[in-house]
Amino acid sequence: MKKVLVVMGSDSDLKVMEKCVDRLKSFDIPVEVRICSAHRTPAVAEQLAKNAAAEGFGVIIAAAGKAAHLGGVLAAYTTLPVIGVPMATSVMGGMDSLLSIVQMPKGIPVATVAIDGADNAAILAAQMIALSDEALAARLTAFKADMAAEVTAKDEKVRAQFA
Amino acid sequence: MKKVLVVMGSDSDLKVMEKCVDRLKSFDIPVEVRICSAHRTPAVAEQLAKNAAAEGFGVIIAAAGKAAHLGGVLAAYTTLPVIGVPMATSVMGGMDSLLSIVQMPKGIPVATVAIDGADNAAILAAQMIALSDEALAARLTAFKADMAAEVTAKDEKVRAQFA
Amino acid sequence: MKKVLVVMGSDSDLKVMEKCVDRLKSFDIPVEVRICSAHRTPAVAEQLAKNAAAEGFGVIIAAAGKAAHLGGVLAAYTTLPVIGVPMATSVMGGMDSLLSIVQMPKGIPVATVAIDGADNAAILAAQMIALSDEALAARLTAFKADMAAEVTAKDEKVRAQFA
Amino acid sequence: MKKVLVVMGSDSDLKVMEKCVDRLKSFDIPVEVRICSAHRTPAVAEQLAKNAAAEGFGVIIAAAGKAAHLGGVLAAYTTLPVIGVPMATSVMGGMDSLLSIVQMPKGIPVATVAIDGADNAAILAAQMIALSDEALAARLTAFKADMAAEVTAKDEKVRAQFA
Amino acid sequence: MKKVLVVMGSDSDLKVMEKCVDRLKSFDIPVEVRICSAHRTPAVAEQLAKNAAAEGFGVIIAAAGKAAHLGGVLAAYTTLPVIGVPMATSVMGGMDSLLSIVQMPKGIPVATVAIDGADNAAILAAQMIALSDEALAARLTAFKADMAAEVTAKDEKVRAQFA
Amino acid sequence: MKKVLVVMGSDSDLKVMEKCVDRLKSFDIPVEVRICSAHRTPAVAEQLAKNAAAEGFGVIIAAAGKAAHLGGVLAAYTTLPVIGVPMATSVMGGMDSLLSIVQMPKGIPVATVAIDGADNAAILAAQMIALSDEALAARLTAFKADMAAEVTAKDEKVRAQFA
Amino acid sequence: MKKVLVVMGSDSDLKVMEKCVDRLKSFDIPVEVRICSAHRTPAVAEQLAKNAAAEGFGVIIAAAGKAAHLGGVLAAYTTLPVIGVPMATSVMGGMDSLLSIVQMPKGIPVATVAIDGADNAAILAAQMIALSDEALAARLTAFKADMAAEVTAKDEKVRAQFA
Amino acid sequence: MKKVLVVMGSDSDLKVMEKCVDRLKSFDIPVEVRICSAHRTPAVAEQLAKNAAAEGFGVIIAAAGKAAHLGGVLAAYTTLPVIGVPMATSVMGGMDSLLSIVQMPKGIPVATVAIDGADNAAILAAQMIALSDEALAARLTAFKADMAAEVTAKDEKVRAQFA
Repeated sequence: MKKVLVVMGSDSDLKVMEKCVDRLKSFDIPVEVRICSAHRTPAVAEQLAKNAAAEGFGVIIAAAGKAAHLGGVLAAYTTLPVIGVPMATSVMGGMDSLLSIVQMPKGIPVATVAIDGADNAAILAAQMIALSDEALAARLTAFKADMAAEVTAKDEKVRAQFA
Repeated sequence: MKKVLVVMGSDSDLKVMEKCVDRLKSFDIPVEVRICSAHRTPAVAEQLAKNAAAEGFGVIIAAAGKAAHLGGVLAAYTTLPVIGVPMATSVMGGMDSLLSIVQMPKGIPVATVAIDGADNAAILAAQMIALSDEALAARLTAFKADMAAEVTAKDEKVRAQFA
Repeated sequence: MKKVLVVMGSDSDLKVMEKCVDRLKSFDIPVEVRICSAHRTPAVAEQLAKNAAAEGFGVIIAAAGKAAHLGGVLAAYTTLPVIGVPMATSVMGGMDSLLSIVQMPKGIPVATVAIDGADNAAILAAQMIALSDEALAARLTAFKADMAAEVTAKDEKVRAQFA
Repeated sequence: MKKVLVVMGSDSDLKVMEKCVDRLKSFDIPVEVRICSAHRTPAVAEQLAKNAAAEGFGVIIAAAGKAAHLGGVLAAYTTLPVIGVPMATSVMGGMDSLLSIVQMPKGIPVATVAIDGADNAAILAAQMIALSDEALAARLTAFKADMAAEVTAKDEKVRAQFA
Repeated sequence: MKKVLVVMGSDSDLKVMEKCVDRLKSFDIPVEVRICSAHRTPAVAEQLAKNAAAEGFGVIIAAAGKAAHLGGVLAAYTTLPVIGVPMATSVMGGMDSLLSIVQMPKGIPVATVAIDGADNAAILAAQMIALSDEALAARLTAFKADMAAEVTAKDEKVRAQFA
Repeated sequence: MKKVLVVMGSDSDLKVMEKCVDRLKSFDIPVEVRICSAHRTPAVAEQLAKNAAAEGFGVIIAAAGKAAHLGGVLAAYTTLPVIGVPMATSVMGGMDSLLSIVQMPKGIPVATVAIDGADNAAILAAQMIALSDEALAARLTAFKADMAAEVTAKDEKVRAQFA
Repeated sequence: MKKVLVVMGSDSDLKVMEKCVDRLKSFDIPVEVRICSAHRTPAVAEQLAKNAAAEGFGVIIAAAGKAAHLGGVLAAYTTLPVIGVPMATSVMGGMDSLLSIVQMPKGIPVATVAIDGADNAAILAAQMIALSDEALAARLTAFKADMAAEVTAKDEKVRAQFA
Repeated sequence: MKKVLVVMGSDSDLKVMEKCVDRLKSFDIPVEVRICSAHRTPAVAEQLAKNAAAEGFGVIIAAAGKAAHLGGVLAAYTTLPVIGVPMATSVMGGMDSLLSIVQMPKGIPVATVAIDGADNAAILAAQMIALSDEALAARLTAFKADMAAEVTAKDEKVRAQFA
C-alpha cells in the first residue's frame, strides 16, 4: 500500500497532528512523520516532495500555521496530491493559515481541510489511497458506519434524558 | 480509468466550472456533469453520492456558493474523496462559500480548493486518480513542465521589456 | 399544541442548547430533543424532517457549528419553519457557523438567530406557534413584561448606586 | 388568513424587496408594504409594531442595511415573529447589516435570512402562517416540488450538453 | 454645567463602563447612570432620549454589545450628540457591536469610540461640553499634559532599563 | 458661532466630503476646508490642530482612508472634539480606514461615524456646537422633522403603489 | 549602487508593479524585473534568491496574490531584505494576499507594504539602500519635500475653492 | 555600525518587544529603547524621528496596537526605513493593529512584520544594516544555518518518535 507522508512546519503542531497519525494507523496505512519548515529548511522540503513518489508515498499531508506556505511549497515539487491542514492561530482563529493554504494559484492545488482538521486530513488521504485498494475502502465504509452508530448512541441517550 | 463526477448547485456555476470540465478532458479523464441542489433536490444528491462508486466514479467535484452545503451532503453518502469548489459571492468575496465547505466536522472531509478554483479541482482529481494510473501521472508531470515553460516564456518577455 | 423538535449536531452542543429546551418548557411547549448529524447520520436527518409535520411538530430548531449544514439539510425535507442556531467556534467567534446557516439559497430559508442564541430560538419558535394559540401569545406578552421588569429593577439598582 | 407586513428602512431597498412581495402574493398571502425608518420615524415604527397583531398581521418582515436596527426596533414592540432581511452593502458585502440584525440580545429574536434574501423571507413567513393553514401548507409543498422540477430540468439540459 | 447621561444595555456592561463614570467625575462633570434596553424597555429609552435636553443633559453615552441598537435608538429621539461604546464580544472581538453602532444611516449619527472605549467616551463627552466651558477646557488641557507626563516617566524608566 | 474645520487626507476624498461641507453650510455653520496629510505634511497637521481652538474652530472633521491616521494625529494636538470619517476602500469596503480611526488608545478619542459618513459628520459637529447655540439646536430639530417628513412621503408613495 | 530585484508571480501583476519599477528608476536605482512563480517555477525562485546577493542585488521586491508564497519562498534562500507586495484580490480586497505575506514565521521576515503598494515598495527599498548611500538619501529627502509641496498645492486649491 | 531605535507605544508592549531587543543584541547591533505615544507625546515622536539619522540610527522599529499610528507618525518625519510591529489585540487577533500599520498611503511606507512579530522585526532591521556590513551579513547567514539545524534536530526527534 502507498504510504502517507505527514509533514509539520513545527513540533508545536504535533499535539494537533497526532490525531492525524493515529487515524492513519487505525486504517493500517503506513505513515512517516517529519518536521520541515518551508522557510527554514526549504531544501529539505524540496527533497521530501521530489522524492515522495519514488519512495512509495501516495499522499502528502502538510500542517502549518500563519503564513502557512508548507503545503504549497511541497506541491510545487510533486504531482502527488497534497493535503493542507491549517493550524489554528490567534488571527481570526486561523484565518491566516486557512487563506494561505487554500487560495493556491491555478495549476498547483492543495486539498484543504478544516482549521485544525488533523483527523479529516487522514480520512481524506485514506479515501484517495482507497481508490485502488478495496480492503481500505471497506475499512472506510466500516468507519463511516461506526461514526453513525456513535451518533445514534448519543441520540438515544439524549432522547432518554429529555423524555 | 475511474470517472469524475462534477456536480454544481446551480447552472449559474457553469461558467466557472467549465474550466474544470475542460481540464479533466485535457487529461483524458472521463467526466459527467450534473446540476443538483443539496436543498432543492436532496434525494438526487443522495442517489448521486450513494451510487457514484458503483457507477465507476473515483472522485466527486462539488461546486456551490453561499451556504454551500452540496459537497458536505454528497460526502455524507460516500467514501469517495469529494472536492469542494467555493463559488465567489459578494460576501467577503466568497468567504461564506469557503467556510461552509472547508469547515467540515470530524469524520467527513471535503477537500477544498481556492474560491472559484475550478481548474485546480480538476488537477487535484487527476492527482488522486493518477495514484493508480501511471499514464495519467505522466500527463500530470508533463502538464507541470508546460506550466513552468509558460512562466519562463513570460519571464523572458518581461526581462526583455525592462532590460 | 404543536411540538418543537430540537436537533443538535453533537452532544457537545447540549450545554448551550439546554437553555433552549428550558425556555420552551417554561412556555409549556412540548419538545423533543435529538442528536443528529447532517453528515454522519444523514438518513436520520432526512427521516426526522420528512416526518416532523405528520408527527405533530410545528417548528424545528437545529443547532450546529463550523460547516453547520444541519439546519439546511433538515429544511430540504420539510416545509415547516426551521430555526438555525449557530454554535460559537474559534473561527472569528462562530462566523463559520453563522454564514453556513444564514446564507441559504433561494427557496429554502433557515431562520437564523444569534451565535449561541439558544434562548432566542425557543422564543422565536414560541412566537410562530403562538400565531394560532392565544394562550401562548399571552404567555409571550407576559414574558416580555417580565423582561422589562427585570431591566427596570437593574436600572433602579444602578441609579441608586451612582446617585 | 393573517397578513404579512413588509417594512423597509428606505425606498432604495424596494428593488430587492419587490421579490419578497411578489413571492408572498404568489402564495395568496395578503401583504402590506411600508417605508419606515427606525431612526428617522421611530414613532411610526413603534405604532406599526404595537398595532400589527390587532390589525391582523401574523408576521413582520423588516429589510434594512448598515446599522440595520429596524427589525430589532419592531421586535421590541410586538410578540409576533419578525423576519430580518440584511441588505447588501459595500462593507464586506453586507456583513454590517447581517451582524446588526442577527446578533439580537436574549429575549428579543429576529429571524434572519441571507443577505438580500428577500425571496426567502417571504417563504419563511409563509411557512409560519402555514402552521395553521392547511391550504397554504399545500401550496408550499407544491412550490417545493416546482423548485425540484426546475433543478431537474436544468440538470437534464447540462447532462445533454456534456454527454 | 450640562450633565452627561450614561446608559447601558445591561448591568454586565457596568464593569467596563465604570471607567467612563469615574473619568467624567474626575472632570467634575455631573453624571447619571441608567440601565436601559433598546429592545426590552424601548419606552424607557424613548423617554430618556426625548427628555434628556430638557433635564439638563448635554451628551448621552450609550454602551451596548452584539446587535448594539441602544445608541441609535436614543439618537432617534434627540438632537443631543450621542456617543456609542461598542462592548467587546466573542464575535471577532466585538466587530458585531462596532458595526451595529458606527454604521448609522444618513441623518442620525452616533459618535463611536473604540471597542470597550469607556474612558474615551467620557473624554469625548467632556470635549463637547468644554466647547462652552472654559474651566472644563482647561481641565482637559491639564489632563492631556498629565498623560504626556505619564508616558515620559515610563519612557525614562525603560531607557534606564535598556541603557 | 464656532467654526468647523474640515480636513481631508487627499483631494480624492473631496467628492465624498462635499456633502459634509454642504450640510454644515445648510446649518449656517462657518466652515473651512483643508487638504492635509498626516504623513506628507505632518507639520501642517500639527499647526492646524494646535491653532484650531484659538482660531475659532469648535470641531475638527478629519476624513482619511486606508491607514487613516489623520484624525488621530490631529487629536493628539488639540482638546477640541475630532470627528473621523473613514473613507471607503477596496479592503473589506473600508474596514482598514474604520479600524485605524475608531480604535484610538485611551486618552485621545476620535468620534467615528460610518464609512463614507460625510453627511453624519456634519450633523454630529452641528449637534456639538448646538450645545451652546439655541438657534442651531432649533435648526437641528427642524432638520429631524424634515427627514421624518421625507420618509413619510416615501411611505405614502409605496403604500399607494402596493395597495 | 546595489540593484533591486523586482519579482512578480504573474505577468498580470505587471500593471500594478510598473509603478514600482518607475519609482526605482526615478531614484536612479538599477532594477531587474522577473516573472517567477513560487509554485510553477520553484527552482528559478530558489536560484534567484540564492544568487541575488552575489549578483549585486541589495533588496528583493516580491509581488504576489492569493496564497502569495513568493516573498516567503525567496526569503527562505537569502538574508537580503525581501519586501512583499500583496496584490489586491476579490477575497476581502486582498486580505488573502496580505495575510499570506505578512504572517511569516519567526526567523524569516518579509517586509510587507500595503495591498497594491507597488510605489511604497520601491520607496522602502530605496530607504534601505540609502543607509549606505548619501546621494540616494538626499534624493529621498527631496522626494519627501516634493510630496509635501504637492499636498500644499492641493490644499491651496481647495482652500480657494471653499473660501 | 548604525544603531536601531526600538519605540513602543506603551510599556505594556515591552513583554513582546523584549524579544526584539534581545535578538538585536544577539547580532551585536547597538539598540536604544523608548516609550513614545503617537497621540500622547507626539512632539517626542517627531523629535525622535527627525533626529534619528543624525544620532546614528539606521532603522526605527515601532510597535503599537489598535489604531497603531506610531510607525506612520515616525515615518512622516524621517527617510530612514521604519519597521512596524502590530501588537495582538482582541479585535480579530490584532487585525486592527495590522491594517493601521500596513495600509500606509503612497509615499510613506512602513515595513510591516507579522502580528507580535518582534523577533522578525529585529532580523529585518539586521538585514537592512547588513547591506553595508559584511560581518553582520555573515552573522545573519550563521543565524539562518542555526535555525535550519534546530529544525533538523526536531525532525530527527519526531522521526525517531514515529518510526
